[in-house]
Amino acid sequence: MIKANNPELKSYLSVDKDSDFPIQNIPFGVFKTATQPARLCTRIGDHVIDLFSLNKLGFFIDLKIPASVFENDYINDFMALGKAQCRAVRDRISELLDNRKDKWNAHELTEHFIHNIKDVEILLPVKVTDYTDFYSSIEHATNVGTMFRGVENALKPNWRHLPVGYHGRASSIVVSGTPIKRPCGQQMPADATAPVYGPCRLLDFELEMAFIVGQATKQGEALSTKAAEDYIFGMVLFNDWSARDIQKWEYEPLGPFLGKSFASSISPWVVTLDALEHFRVPGPVQEPAVLPYLQYEGHRNLDIHLEVDIQTPEGVVQTVCRSNFKYMYWNMAQQLAHHTVNGCNLNVGDMCASGTISGKTPDSYGSMLEISWRGTKPVAMPDGTERKFIQDGDTVIMRGMSEKDGLRIGFGEVSGAIIPATPLVEV
Amino acid sequence: MIKANNPELKSYLSVDKDSDFPIQNIPFGVFKTATQPARLCTRIGDHVIDLFSLNKLGFFIDLKIPASVFENDYINDFMALGKAQCRAVRDRISELLDNRKDKWNAHELTEHFIHNIKDVEILLPVKVTDYTDFYSSIEHATNVGTMFRGVENALKPNWRHLPVGYHGRASSIVVSGTPIKRPCGQQMPADATAPVYGPCRLLDFELEMAFIVGQATKQGEALSTKAAEDYIFGMVLFNDWSARDIQKWEYEPLGPFLGKSFASSISPWVVTLDALEHFRVPGPVQEPAVLPYLQYEGHRNLDIHLEVDIQTPEGVVQTVCRSNFKYMYWNMAQQLAHHTVNGCNLNVGDMCASGTISGKTPDSYGSMLEISWRGTKPVAMPDGTERKFIQDGDTVIMRGMSEKDGLRIGFGEVSGAIIPATPLVEV
Repeated sequence: MIKANNPELKSYLSVDKDSDFPIQNIPFGVFKTATQPARLCTRIGDHVIDLFSLNKLGFFIDLKIPASVFENDYINDFMALGKAQCRAVRDRISELLDNRKDKWNAHELTEHFIHNIKDVEILLPVKVTDYTDFYSSIEHATNVGTMFRGVENALKPNWRHLPVGYHGRASSIVVSGTPIKRPCGQQMPADATAPVYGPCRLLDFELEMAFIVGQATKQGEALSTKAAEDYIFGMVLFNDWSARDIQKWEYEPLGPFLGKSFASSISPWVVTLDALEHFRVPGPVQEPAVLPYLQYEGHRNLDIHLEVDIQTPEGVVQTVCRSNFKYMYWNMAQQLAHHTVNGCNLNVGDMCASGTISGKTPDSYGSMLEISWRGTKPVAMPDGTERKFIQDGDTVIMRGMSEKDGLRIGFGEVSGAIIPATPLVEV
Repeated sequence: MIKANNPELKSYLSVDKDSDFPIQNIPFGVFKTATQPARLCTRIGDHVIDLFSLNKLGFFIDLKIPASVFENDYINDFMALGKAQCRAVRDRISELLDNRKDKWNAHELTEHFIHNIKDVEILLPVKVTDYTDFYSSIEHATNVGTMFRGVENALKPNWRHLPVGYHGRASSIVVSGTPIKRPCGQQMPADATAPVYGPCRLLDFELEMAFIVGQATKQGEALSTKAAEDYIFGMVLFNDWSARDIQKWEYEPLGPFLGKSFASSISPWVVTLDALEHFRVPGPVQEPAVLPYLQYEGHRNLDIHLEVDIQTPEGVVQTVCRSNFKYMYWNMAQQLAHHTVNGCNLNVGDMCASGTISGKTPDSYGSMLEISWRGTKPVAMPDGTERKFIQDGDTVIMRGMSEKDGLRIGFGEVSGAIIPATPLVEV
């Protein structure tokens, strides 16, 4: 077992019983304060732990990590140290902050490396190099295909043979809490003979998770499903904001472009694959059998409960989706083996999102397109209003966590509030 | 007129009369030698001019540019200085290296900043942040559409209303001369009932040009067609290598992925938009009229002659395409205005390729898919062999240059030799 995962451990720092961040999590993020530049951190309960300071105090002295790795806008350089080093840091943090006082004097120095989360700004943790979005939930692909092509042709012939994916826009990935401006663009209204320009009318979320590549590959190399997870550092929640009207008009024949590229939001804490080890479950049976390069051994799916709330400007909240990452038809190891099968090289900081994570029942669908079934089944809000898609002023909040045998490891949340479009404000 | 563009200027450095790199070009690139790290450079004739050394010698002293901008693996930091600074550098280089000896003593110090191009290694000039590929040649889109959907449905309904594009893979963009390994992947042979894994059998090139973004925009900002070119630093030749069999099987419904992401090749010299000013020409009439945000004034197309050679391992060469960048239906200003209309932010180093640049006649088609019309019209090579697609050992060479009133400004070439696939070599 990974040392830091030991369920017996307890931190001397206060942790609420329903916190996503017990001492067994130790995710990685980036924060800054009014007086300090961006630094790497981890989190226990609501305590933000400054890794630059821990390093400066000598607690990582034997690991010989340059200070610049920790005083940095992104965790990329840290991930690039390799899994062995990152594991050593995670184990050391666990050792420093648990309630055994036998070795280190971190307890006495706590005030020098700790902040309350309310007092700091949490930043985008990763400099995203390339971003890929998969389409790996069979329920989501079937729902969307049924709406647009009918139930007989819902899944394209390739869908069960390979994890369909496409390249997305890396520049516009933002951290939770960043306001999202409603995008403008071309749409072809149902009754129109020519396209129009204007604010998106069908603004949607997509409930996804994303993994972050922590090790590069060389061009021409292919990863096996067995090796793939060694290249995955950790995961975040991912809201793939979608402008359905823009997307529908633009996407043939080359796929989504401006309907997606205005923004994607991620949760700020990168939870390591190590921390999720305890929550592995078998994946769905893949039928027909996949080609050898996509076959895998072991449990590659993860049991992560997911939910989506819509919150009105007045603070009225409706949970519109409860889903689970374990539903994924294609797992991350298969996605990465497929991504590299043609020799495409990976960089540290590449982000791969899952595609919308829908379950079998309407209350587990991961987008308003599916939940409202193209607007035909509006969602009732507690204040008497209804939602077919997302309105200005609404905040979409996604949460994710795993729980088993009394241990809870979570991601916190990714939230984003919609601000109105500003058409024709051109530079 | 931009000072460095003055057609009267002549360099005191030797320049062949048919060189792409007279003193009026002054493109930017990156080179290294056996004893020096990567540095920024320009080129006149076959002379590589070390900009780090020019700066160190004090020739840019009034411009106050940090040395680190010039001793750098990429030109990104240089582009980020802004167009005014980059123009000042280009003008200064012109002033230093012309045959007027009235002001600077660069002539006396030439040996301290010059190399013969044979003695240095020319590197990838740009760290590509995001990469977008457009589909902006109406001839190419019509050819491909005709092959796959018939002549009646060749262009999708959106094609004449917006510059169709998609996100591509940035990590696998390589510099001219880099060998290209034939990719492996899934294909669905015409007579098969299940997909197979193996080396791509239908390996193709796509003749494209790409522009490089030199100034960032903020998320939520839209560029007008009028402002767009201020954000474009320069251009390169671009070979969008394509695995047609992999592409065909994977691309529905989310667009090209592994059929493209194994590699794209670019020419190493970034020719500034300034240097191409003299070669502006009107674009094609766009009918129906485009929406206001895509309308533009002035001449936004560029007259750049393009050609593609296939060279066998034995050195036998056949020119298979002569095209021109001026054929583009959608110009770069329109592409960038469209790209940002939804508020998608640009970064310094973003690369946007044109899509395959085909003309009206078969000898101007920009891909083997079109030239051989899906393999039905093989190209005869001078050695008696024929080509439907690209074979192992073949080198594809693309060249581009503008010529008018005795002035020639060119890009040199982008070449890539195909090396055999290595299936099942997995990490």
